[in-house]
Amino acid sequence: MSEKLLRSFIDVSPDSHFPIQNLPYGVFNPRNGGVPRIGVAIGDWALDTAVLEANGFFNGPELRGKAVFAQPTLNQFMALGRPAWQEARAVIQELLAADCPTLRDDALLRQQALIPMGDVIMHLPARIGDYTDFYSSREHASNVGKMFRPDKEPLLPNWLYLPVAYHGRSSSIILDGTPVKRPWGQILPDGSRTPQFAPSAALDFELEMGFFTGPGNELGHPIPVDQAEEHIFGLVLVNDWSARDIQVWEYRPLGPFLAKNFATSISPWVVTLDALTPFRTTGPRQDPEPLPYLRHPNQTYDIHLEVTLQSPEMSQPVSISRSNFRHLYWSMAQQLAHHTSTGCNMRPGDLLASGTISGPTPGSYGSMLELSWRG
Amino acid sequence: MSEKLLRSFIDVSPDSHFPIQNLPYGVFNPRNGGVPRIGVAIGDWALDTAVLEANGFFNGPELRGKAVFAQPTLNQFMALGRPAWQEARAVIQELLAADCPTLRDDALLRQQALIPMGDVIMHLPARIGDYTDFYSSREHASNVGKMFRPDKEPLLPNWLYLPVAYHGRSSSIILDGTPVKRPWGQILPDGSRTPQFAPSAALDFELEMGFFTGPGNELGHPIPVDQAEEHIFGLVLVNDWSARDIQVWEYRPLGPFLAKNFATSISPWVVTLDALTPFRTTGPRQDPEPLPYLRHPNQTYDIHLEVTLQSPEMSQPVSISRSNFRHLYWSMAQQLAHHTSTGCNMRPGDLLASGTISGPTPGSYGSMLELSWRG
Repeated sequence: MSEKLLRSFIDVSPDSHFPIQNLPYGVFNPRNGGVPRIGVAIGDWALDTAVLEANGFFNGPELRGKAVFAQPTLNQFMALGRPAWQEARAVIQELLAADCPTLRDDALLRQQALIPMGDVIMHLPARIGDYTDFYSSREHASNVGKMFRPDKEPLLPNWLYLPVAYHGRSSSIILDGTPVKRPWGQILPDGSRTPQFAPSAALDFELEMGFFTGPGNELGHPIPVDQAEEHIFGLVLVNDWSARDIQVWEYRPLGPFLAKNFATSISPWVVTLDALTPFRTTGPRQDPEPLPYLRHPNQTYDIHLEVTLQSPEMSQPVSISRSNFRHLYWSMAQQLAHHTSTGCNMRPGDLLASGTISGPTPGSYGSMLELSWRG
Repeated sequence: MSEKLLRSFIDVSPDSHFPIQNLPYGVFNPRNGGVPRIGVAIGDWALDTAVLEANGFFNGPELRGKAVFAQPTLNQFMALGRPAWQEARAVIQELLAADCPTLRDDALLRQQALIPMGDVIMHLPARIGDYTDFYSSREHASNVGKMFRPDKEPLLPNWLYLPVAYHGRSSSIILDGTPVKRPWGQILPDGSRTPQFAPSAALDFELEMGFFTGPGNELGHPIPVDQAEEHIFGLVLVNDWSARDIQVWEYRPLGPFLAKNFATSISPWVVTLDALTPFRTTGPRQDPEPLPYLRHPNQTYDIHLEVTLQSPEMSQPVSISRSNFRHLYWSMAQQLAHHTSTGCNMRPGDLLASGTISGPTPGSYGSMLELSWRG
């Protein structure tokens, strides 16, 4: 049976993000106790892979004898590489399949391994060593350029030759839903030459996606662009909170620093590249042609993205932006190849985010800066 | 006896960096085997603090029952805070003092605990979560401004109001002495509009110092400037390797990225703030007066710094720069208060570097960029 037609014995609503074709990984512990461990999401359930591991189900050549799921982070599993990830995915899909009796007909095992999503507490999926934020949406970079340099070309000369990026702050990466405190910072009032220290009045979100790296590379040994996807474990949603008023005063000449270091929210479930295979598509045409070390077929993924906003006064969230991951100009493979081209080393669990993903139309802009056109 | 006059039973040459007043911490393992553990440097010896710990010498209220020295990194010790650091320092100074028989007269203990420096392999002193690099030398920032913006004021308007900084790459921090591979990167040839991918032809050093944070702070809770030094464990020498030709093409608008992510070298021994107390001095006068959240008596430390260069053809290293830590405009306390002012959280073992420390005269410039005046 093709993966597309695969069905689970678990009832999964058609509008669930977690059908048997997805199976994203996360770190959780049951609300009634126990240490954090690794699971996958299936419908309204968390499947405890540490229980499956303890019961000996991961007995293939890549995973046998490895205790990677009874862990408080995904780092060790990420380090194993794609063959292990695919072996685990095959085992889990098999156990959840409608026609497989092993888990389906074992009430005790089901009770141990399947926990209602409402009864789990989610944790950060990985110990994130380094966090890099790219600036890979042509539409976003052009919009920002038009606003901040209205008399010049919207894109700086380097933008079409390399995926621009900066190092972010890994300590302040938090799980989606964690409250974010409005930061204070130095802000230059309009018309003044002296900054004030005040709470940010221009707090923005940035709609991004990020990927976790897998095996990584040794210092001094770049990852070639055509091998880069073998080093990508999976994707999360990223909200790069940004204090625009702090940013505009502090960022020259070394880039954003405090304006983006007080919080970066990520989603708890990591969608693997293997789950995204059916959504592969071609990215935007790149002109000028990238230099040889960045040249590849520019494969990307069709992932619909939507931002909703709900204030305490609002009974329903409203949709304020709809975009798509495929709009990004620079692909994940190009980002990773460029990042390591100097020999910079990646470790399992490093996070590389896309930068704001704006679409071509005003309704698809990925930040308030653009949606309100600096308003 | 005052600490200044304290003498050790161990013979320490007068020009050694490691008298009993210093006692810097590092992570080492004996060349003939054994796992990495923590030690202090004394003269030409490494003193194994894990052995002292196993023998019960750290029995004060702060350290009793804590196994912080039989560890492969200093992070746990750093996390304990200044009272524990001072307790450990007092125990070690007492054991090494000329008039204390405990270690001096116990041949077996001496043999276990004192290893000749030539017989140890040094490791990175900490697991570095995040690495931040400041730009706190007025002379360096002014020199760079004069070179890159000759028609404008050398300092950008924000520089005198805040300690400018960027997030660096923690994965590529290496120990001093580890070979550095010349990075490849995108470089714009003179007069061209199309970059090439080539080995850097403008590899530079940057003479810096860095400090490791101790207990740190919770996300959302800034460290006030007058409490900042309680969060500083100690200092290392930092060499922020920089590819100037990659930097000038990539750095707009988000700052340095690949130009500085392929290697950052640090010294293996961490000199504690407590050891530096006799060298406290006042930093440069700050005008305009800093905003209240950065205001403090601007205490700094008088630390002589020297850069020597030796190529394979040279039989002797030559001194190419002499500078001093006290030249820095922004103090460590101000850097830490500013960094956390948004609520950004520090973890034990985070590294904050000063940026190039240039002095006021050409012979004290801390980078080749300045020493050769962009030559």
